[in-house]
Amino acid sequence: MADFEGAPIGFIGLGIMGKPMARNLANAGYDLVISNRSRDDVDTLLAEGDHFRAAANPREVAEQTKAVITMLPDSPDVRDVVFGEHGLLSAMGPGHLFIDMSTIAPAASIEVNDALTARGARALDAPVSGGETGAVNAALSIMAGGGAADFARARPLFEAMGKTIVHVGGPGAGQIVKACNQMVVAINYAAVSEALVLGAKAGVDPEKIVQVLSGGLAASRVMELKGANMIAHNFQPGFRIDLHRKDLGIALATASANGVPVPAAALVAQLFEALAAAGSGDLDHSALVTAYENLAHFQLGGAG
Amino acid sequence: MADFEGAPIGFIGLGIMGKPMARNLANAGYDLVISNRSRDDVDTLLAEGDHFRAAANPREVAEQTKAVITMLPDSPDVRDVVFGEHGLLSAMGPGHLFIDMSTIAPAASIEVNDALTARGARALDAPVSGGETGAVNAALSIMAGGGAADFARARPLFEAMGKTIVHVGGPGAGQIVKACNQMVVAINYAAVSEALVLGAKAGVDPEKIVQVLSGGLAASRVMELKGANMIAHNFQPGFRIDLHRKDLGIALATASANGVPVPAAALVAQLFEALAAAGSGDLDHSALVTAYENLAHFQLGGAG
Repeated sequence: MADFEGAPIGFIGLGIMGKPMARNLANAGYDLVISNRSRDDVDTLLAEGDHFRAAANPREVAEQTKAVITMLPDSPDVRDVVFGEHGLLSAMGPGHLFIDMSTIAPAASIEVNDALTARGARALDAPVSGGETGAVNAALSIMAGGGAADFARARPLFEAMGKTIVHVGGPGAGQIVKACNQMVVAINYAAVSEALVLGAKAGVDPEKIVQVLSGGLAASRVMELKGANMIAHNFQPGFRIDLHRKDLGIALATASANGVPVPAAALVAQLFEALAAAGSGDLDHSALVTAYENLAHFQLGGAG
Repeated sequence: MADFEGAPIGFIGLGIMGKPMARNLANAGYDLVISNRSRDDVDTLLAEGDHFRAAANPREVAEQTKAVITMLPDSPDVRDVVFGEHGLLSAMGPGHLFIDMSTIAPAASIEVNDALTARGARALDAPVSGGETGAVNAALSIMAGGGAADFARARPLFEAMGKTIVHVGGPGAGQIVKACNQMVVAINYAAVSEALVLGAKAGVDPEKIVQVLSGGLAASRVMELKGANMIAHNFQPGFRIDLHRKDLGIALATASANGVPVPAAALVAQLFEALAAAGSGDLDHSALVTAYENLAHFQLGGAG
């Protein structure tokens, strides 16, 4: 708890993920200076106890803290919090650590890192996976890019929020690994979807498919956790299609920037586009199976 | 052990999979009448003990048994064993059970089933997953299609060879589920391959990618069991690309016959075609990652 010279921790971005992450830091004993575009989420936390106090904008957060965590929707949001009119950049300097846990473009992470290190501050990109459940249960996987000493300094904070905590490389490496993660999850959804729709339309009970395939090399966490929901058309998010679509956009751009063809990820990204176009962007990403149902003109036995 | 009126069990097809499966039946106390195209494999088992005796051809196997198991490479092999010159069809009748554990086209399974039931015999399609390791350790997943009473009768035999044993539906349903299984495994390989090649070419240690992704929703059995081999280019089979390519051909034909587009499976099947064309058909299917390396003009840190 005595990290960062006893100073409170800044936390900017109190959405579905950020709020429970901030709560877990408070539960671990940290005092937090919080800021959020919509004031309601700030008030919610302020009402929960004296571990929280509010700042008017990112710069004020940075002025009162030695470490600032951000958990924001996309690259432009992070850029705005750092470089914007009341951004934190001018308040960061030697001894300050910026920890961006958002999922954004690796190039944007590196840009932010460069700007902060030019002022003598330090930065980590530390995106997470595990979704709202992982955030609530302090069970996130955290993939951190940046310097080893900075990672060591941030580790107690990560341990208050996550379970699998890995330093994956230098600046931007966390975002690279997160992009890989989102590709794999999307492609594994495609795999389960194709199996369920083929099997069911060919007359097999899809629950039997999940049962047998889970016993062998075809097993995946997606099948285990989401197979039954896909069959039952239970698409309450969870993690929304719109966000996964955004993450696949980052992954495809990153792949292209690195000269790496990723045809399966590109294919699945197109199916997410189709779902977004059809107005399904607010459903859980497991609703990818409905894109396959539409293609096959066939519905699984769900409520949908 | 007293199943099938104390008669021995027939076993035809003593390859990489069939031999250990026959051994596990013998270890469970069954006597086996065996037959194989190449005589060497028959002699190997005969030398192992008096649970085995040889028959000259499939018909002679059927004449001496009440249940015949086949474990053959492809649909034409099964057709030949059933319908060929010394095929078992003419020796099968009431009380006889044919259990085909090969992976073949569902349509071929149904054709065989129809011919046998027309003679008063019974048939199950019961393909497996789990590979050579699963066969050796009696830990196969067995997905059986056919009648419930026939499945119940065969269950003790399955229990000598497998661990996850599921009656998935009527005739051909086992092959449908196996086709689904092979699609999922192939697509999950594509997912891991795209992540490893993108991450590594972008400068991240691929072992870190496996480590972090295994902690979350991206986790899969393929990543867990094969990720390290893919990074190290350890492509000793295992399950050969040529066989997985054959299985994907069955899956795509089955999907087309049922009016189900399976774009991700079709994409990965094309990459297996490319590997076969390049002479890599004898490598383990985890060598799918080399197709991605070729596309990206980049090699993981392996020995390859």
